[in-house]
Amino acid sequence: MNQDLPADILIRRVSLLPLPHQSRFIPAGWLSIKDSLIIGLGAGDAPQIPARLCLDGRGCLAMPGLINAHTHAPMSLLRGLADDLTLKTWFEKYIFPAEGKWVNEEFVYRGTLLACAEMIRSGTTTFADGYFFEEQVARATAKAGMRALLAQGVLDFPTPDSPSPDQALKRAESFIRSSAFSSLIHPALFAHSAYTCSPWLLQRCRDLADRYGVPLITHLAESQSELEEVSRKYGRTPVNQMESLGLLSSNLIACHCVWLKDEEMDLLARRGVRVAHNPESNMKLASGVAPVPELLARGVAVGLGTDGCASNNNLDLFQEMDSAAKLHKVHRLDPTVMPSPVVLEMATLGSAKVLGMEKEIGSLEVGKKADIIILNLQSPHLQPVYNIVSQLVYSATGADVRDVIIDGQLVMQNRRLLTLDEETILKSAETWQRRIAGDKSQPLQQ
Amino acid sequence: MNQDLPADILIRRVSLLPLPHQSRFIPAGWLSIKDSLIIGLGAGDAPQIPARLCLDGRGCLAMPGLINAHTHAPMSLLRGLADDLTLKTWFEKYIFPAEGKWVNEEFVYRGTLLACAEMIRSGTTTFADGYFFEEQVARATAKAGMRALLAQGVLDFPTPDSPSPDQALKRAESFIRSSAFSSLIHPALFAHSAYTCSPWLLQRCRDLADRYGVPLITHLAESQSELEEVSRKYGRTPVNQMESLGLLSSNLIACHCVWLKDEEMDLLARRGVRVAHNPESNMKLASGVAPVPELLARGVAVGLGTDGCASNNNLDLFQEMDSAAKLHKVHRLDPTVMPSPVVLEMATLGSAKVLGMEKEIGSLEVGKKADIIILNLQSPHLQPVYNIVSQLVYSATGADVRDVIIDGQLVMQNRRLLTLDEETILKSAETWQRRIAGDKSQPLQQ
Repeated sequence: MNQDLPADILIRRVSLLPLPHQSRFIPAGWLSIKDSLIIGLGAGDAPQIPARLCLDGRGCLAMPGLINAHTHAPMSLLRGLADDLTLKTWFEKYIFPAEGKWVNEEFVYRGTLLACAEMIRSGTTTFADGYFFEEQVARATAKAGMRALLAQGVLDFPTPDSPSPDQALKRAESFIRSSAFSSLIHPALFAHSAYTCSPWLLQRCRDLADRYGVPLITHLAESQSELEEVSRKYGRTPVNQMESLGLLSSNLIACHCVWLKDEEMDLLARRGVRVAHNPESNMKLASGVAPVPELLARGVAVGLGTDGCASNNNLDLFQEMDSAAKLHKVHRLDPTVMPSPVVLEMATLGSAKVLGMEKEIGSLEVGKKADIIILNLQSPHLQPVYNIVSQLVYSATGADVRDVIIDGQLVMQNRRLLTLDEETILKSAETWQRRIAGDKSQPLQQ
Repeated sequence: MNQDLPADILIRRVSLLPLPHQSRFIPAGWLSIKDSLIIGLGAGDAPQIPARLCLDGRGCLAMPGLINAHTHAPMSLLRGLADDLTLKTWFEKYIFPAEGKWVNEEFVYRGTLLACAEMIRSGTTTFADGYFFEEQVARATAKAGMRALLAQGVLDFPTPDSPSPDQALKRAESFIRSSAFSSLIHPALFAHSAYTCSPWLLQRCRDLADRYGVPLITHLAESQSELEEVSRKYGRTPVNQMESLGLLSSNLIACHCVWLKDEEMDLLARRGVRVAHNPESNMKLASGVAPVPELLARGVAVGLGTDGCASNNNLDLFQEMDSAAKLHKVHRLDPTVMPSPVVLEMATLGSAKVLGMEKEIGSLEVGKKADIIILNLQSPHLQPVYNIVSQLVYSATGADVRDVIIDGQLVMQNRRLLTLDEETILKSAETWQRRIAGDKSQPLQQ
């Protein structure tokens, strides 16, 4: 376990959950980090090695950072703008007009900083994003020191950053080719959906993603209205539309996947499509309940996502795990489905697989990236502990995270952000709120 | 507004949400407390009055303390003992045996202290409880300084505190007659359910509650298996069983109420029965989805509860509100049901009505009890604020609560508990965990 290497960070006297299974729980142990990597971990006392920084883990648990498989980070600035509305009203009367009017480079940059602050504070170390002006998402993510798969959005109609789909494709290509990327930030392409992207556009997106070898992200079979619209326009279900256009492949990350027939699930499994499950967004927008146990039974890689803040309304993956575990139980009237280890795996290794990063992140192993969160278990709502996995899924929230390490870098210590200026971020959120809510042409909910 | 009375506590420069409606939101105001009561509140600068204690509310929101309409506080010591199991296995193999073996006066006292610490920390100021050795719940609740309706449990079979239903009834009567009560703590009777209490026992409970004028609490129509069992034994649904025994009245607090026919809802409304809704427990145990919108439409008083920690697994009413708002939306595929103001009202004034305390608590009004929580809104996940009610329901968690005042007494300040010794409470939780988990005859989940 490389016990004699000097370390950059040494975490001592800590409980460890290297993999999302109770059987792998180490009640008292240590973990060491050098550069971006985990170089040692084990039970018992830490080896006597020199380390730049020692963290005392007494009363705490170190576990893999959570991975958000689907979000729209800049939409944090629209949190709570429109709730309890039909999907059509929500989209057409609030979200699309607000985006059309307000989304610009500054909005995207400030909104992503706000989202990164929230994600780090709630134990998320990696996220997959799809939005506009994605280079600004990259800029903010780099500042935060987070790991991400960032996808430039493409739609049929004029968007905040592109007057036409042609322009959007050009912008997406230029985003993928840009040098803004690092070992932490990887590019992707976000073809919004089968109902907002024409067959021509979807095929161009497929070609572009293939040419550059980057993942293609899309919303798939999210709602009944999507099913109706795609069926009316193209005479096929969204899944069959994607299949007929050659998009179903191991390169596709399909978000939501709520309305799937059995043969469509078989097809997704056969094509190696990866799926992001977003239970809270699906609940709040009343989209439906995704057949996640059936997808898992078919061997489909399923990760957990929060979706954007306008439909959740937070980015806390601990709460998302709780909802994922409970929603499927009540939906099937079977309390044994989606047990806590399955859900915790979905938010760690599962999401890592969806993002194509499972060799680097998703568990604590020597040689893997040091993306680690340390939770303070010494709180009344987290005691006593009979089963640490159950505690994480059913009792914890993001507020229990004390320290966050991403790529070997400490980005939060004792709940203080080290890479971001929280005060400035909160002030700019307030400025944007005044701008947007103060605009009387924008209908705000009472 | 009694602006010239000297105050015990003055909260200044604070946002106020006196009632659970956005229209009543006061962006900047003040609130004053004398003895146990709110004596003044308003917009703008606070009056110049002498006060023993001034709290600076900048960046914060003061709102009514949340009210937990149904829990079993001592079960916090069984948190996470058994999860992801069928209701029958959960009850018969884990919970009932664990309770039979371990529940004694010390367990109940220590478990309630742990629960009170968690409730105060997550913004709950009042709760309704039903368990065994309820005098120990009262003792711990008094120590915590919380408001509560406490009900001694009665069942057909031997329980931890009573070898027979006769003894249980005697114990319940002696609990109700005891002098352990105050303006904060009120007694009640907990007849477990129609499937665990014989008709004879239910009628004795009814008579006893009537004789002393205390509320009768029961589990009603929680699961399909309850329906089957009651129907097999008595040839009636649980609701009709309760009706035939004369239990349905405005004195009854019926918990869960998941499996109700239309005419049963009409009957509950006609009889003035009060209902406690527990969405997360119903989800986790896969009990089903209660017809809450239909009950509310019939004018039934519905409050929000967490149920016990063994089936949730926490006591955070903020998370419970989020689940309540989202569950009904996805269950009906209608995002407009259970909008955030309805849900916030359920956790405040609604629960107050269920507990028969709506004249005293549930909103911030001059002359009402000073049960107030102060949330820190200066966190990335709570910004920006377009609609404060939506933010509380969809974005906040109990960890956002900074200060808690109950009956005019400050019980938490800057997240430090003032009435309870958290360290001792956590240590005793660990001691109980070792005792219970260390017992090899007790099957523990891996």
